[in-house]
Amino acid sequence: MSVLVVGSTALDSIKTPKAENPRLLGGSASHASVAASFFSPVHLVGIVGDDFPKRYIGLYKRHGINLEALQTVPGKTFHWAGEYEVNMNNRRTLTTELGVFETFSPKLPKPLEETPYVLLANIAPALQHHVLDQMRQPKFVIADTMDLWLNIALADLLKLLRRIDAFVLNDSEARLLTKDENLVSTVRKIHRLGPKYVIIKKGEHGSFLSSPRGFFLAPAFPLQKVVDPTGAGDSFVGGLLGYLASRGGSVDAHLRNAIVYGTAVASFCCEGFGLKRTTRISRQAIEERVKTLRKLVAF
Amino acid sequence: MSVLVVGSTALDSIKTPKAENPRLLGGSASHASVAASFFSPVHLVGIVGDDFPKRYIGLYKRHGINLEALQTVPGKTFHWAGEYEVNMNNRRTLTTELGVFETFSPKLPKPLEETPYVLLANIAPALQHHVLDQMRQPKFVIADTMDLWLNIALADLLKLLRRIDAFVLNDSEARLLTKDENLVSTVRKIHRLGPKYVIIKKGEHGSFLSSPRGFFLAPAFPLQKVVDPTGAGDSFVGGLLGYLASRGGSVDAHLRNAIVYGTAVASFCCEGFGLKRTTRISRQAIEERVKTLRKLVAF
Repeated sequence: MSVLVVGSTALDSIKTPKAENPRLLGGSASHASVAASFFSPVHLVGIVGDDFPKRYIGLYKRHGINLEALQTVPGKTFHWAGEYEVNMNNRRTLTTELGVFETFSPKLPKPLEETPYVLLANIAPALQHHVLDQMRQPKFVIADTMDLWLNIALADLLKLLRRIDAFVLNDSEARLLTKDENLVSTVRKIHRLGPKYVIIKKGEHGSFLSSPRGFFLAPAFPLQKVVDPTGAGDSFVGGLLGYLASRGGSVDAHLRNAIVYGTAVASFCCEGFGLKRTTRISRQAIEERVKTLRKLVAF
Repeated sequence: MSVLVVGSTALDSIKTPKAENPRLLGGSASHASVAASFFSPVHLVGIVGDDFPKRYIGLYKRHGINLEALQTVPGKTFHWAGEYEVNMNNRRTLTTELGVFETFSPKLPKPLEETPYVLLANIAPALQHHVLDQMRQPKFVIADTMDLWLNIALADLLKLLRRIDAFVLNDSEARLLTKDENLVSTVRKIHRLGPKYVIIKKGEHGSFLSSPRGFFLAPAFPLQKVVDPTGAGDSFVGGLLGYLASRGGSVDAHLRNAIVYGTAVASFCCEGFGLKRTTRISRQAIEERVKTLRKLVAF
């Protein structure tokens, strides 16, 4: 079954202690869509300016991503510039230029309104609502977020939590949202805000699912070298939902595996700048990492 | 088979944001010995002063711990006082009074020299050497350490690494030792220093084993409430070695399970001050947590 992804479509300029890469293809929707495309047909909802490089459109297309709902308008594409510190866990934003995103009002073509799996990737909660308003009884809706929205759009975000099945956020965001340091009580508090499934991303420490079937701890893939973690979280949730859509049926039956598939795709994302590594892998390479992850936690 | 544990035997005064507990039974050897005692006979090697409370001797004995090599001498028992911050990951030392530890020179009774499983719990590397010098071809030697020895006794510690089978340390200590931020390359560097097995403790994020059979990621037990994490690392390695000794045979065949058993015991340790919770559990309670851990990571 197919997946609808709404989120940012951006150009990312990324600086690490070892290298500098200007104007890479980035944005939450780009990473999530490419990740999901290994498993299911993807419809991308986003906006770019007329400066958006043609080769990036080609890249989306090579992944079979449907671009019917990608608007191209006069103006500049959303541009983010950031810098990572040595340990790659800390990053700081150097520039954020919203460009055409300032006036973005996603409008879904009729057939897309019935897409069964919906990913509200990281973007302003108001836009996540706006897309959800246009959907007709989706089977499963998952939303991601970032600390920015917890700080400047909390009311919108809280309203969103009542409308979605699953919520994905990282551990520091979970603490910020709940004012709680303990992971277990944090997820319990988030359930009370609405979502049936809560998934906490812990970066190099893997991820944690709380669901009606209990807790699940997923490992991260042990990487000897992290080149650029930008988009890893988006790749994770995109791979997760793409896999889930490919299986159909009961979410509970497939969610643990879906998280592990998302983990595998995210690990590739970290091994190259932007989408450079992710766009070069195959489904087979993902399967191999899933097999490795299975061995890694077996006892 | 039996386990020999050398380490500190101390009185701990522990302050957390919620409570204060003076002169609890503490020290690496105390925590590790009690943890190991759920699985195997334990010989404790340590030293206490004549102020050491009789009830703590009774506690060791109730766990069947052999105290033949616990010296009692005139003077004060080693006393450590520390304070935890709200998130329980940061602690600071308020006082360290070595007392009788300043002149400690462990001497093993003849029969103990042949103990097959040896735990060199956290203590000065010179003392770990001194005990190892007295052992006759132990089957398996595991050593723990702390950042203090990396800073003030590095040469001794590096010599020790050439003499042991397994080395346990936490993630920040591993980074300090190798001057490397990446976990995978960190363990590779530590292997080159000697140990065949390297186990990195990651606190609430579980632990990581690197061995000839590859990597193993063990989960931490998800606790809703951490009362006092002091001694959790010692409980972990004590439970691990106690379990391993109880199985005998090939280390490689049992080490993953041993790590999970150590994890389970360590989780109880965190639920009470000092050894209060650990001393009240049963083998059955440990088995139940191991079962929960198995379900937690299954996919």
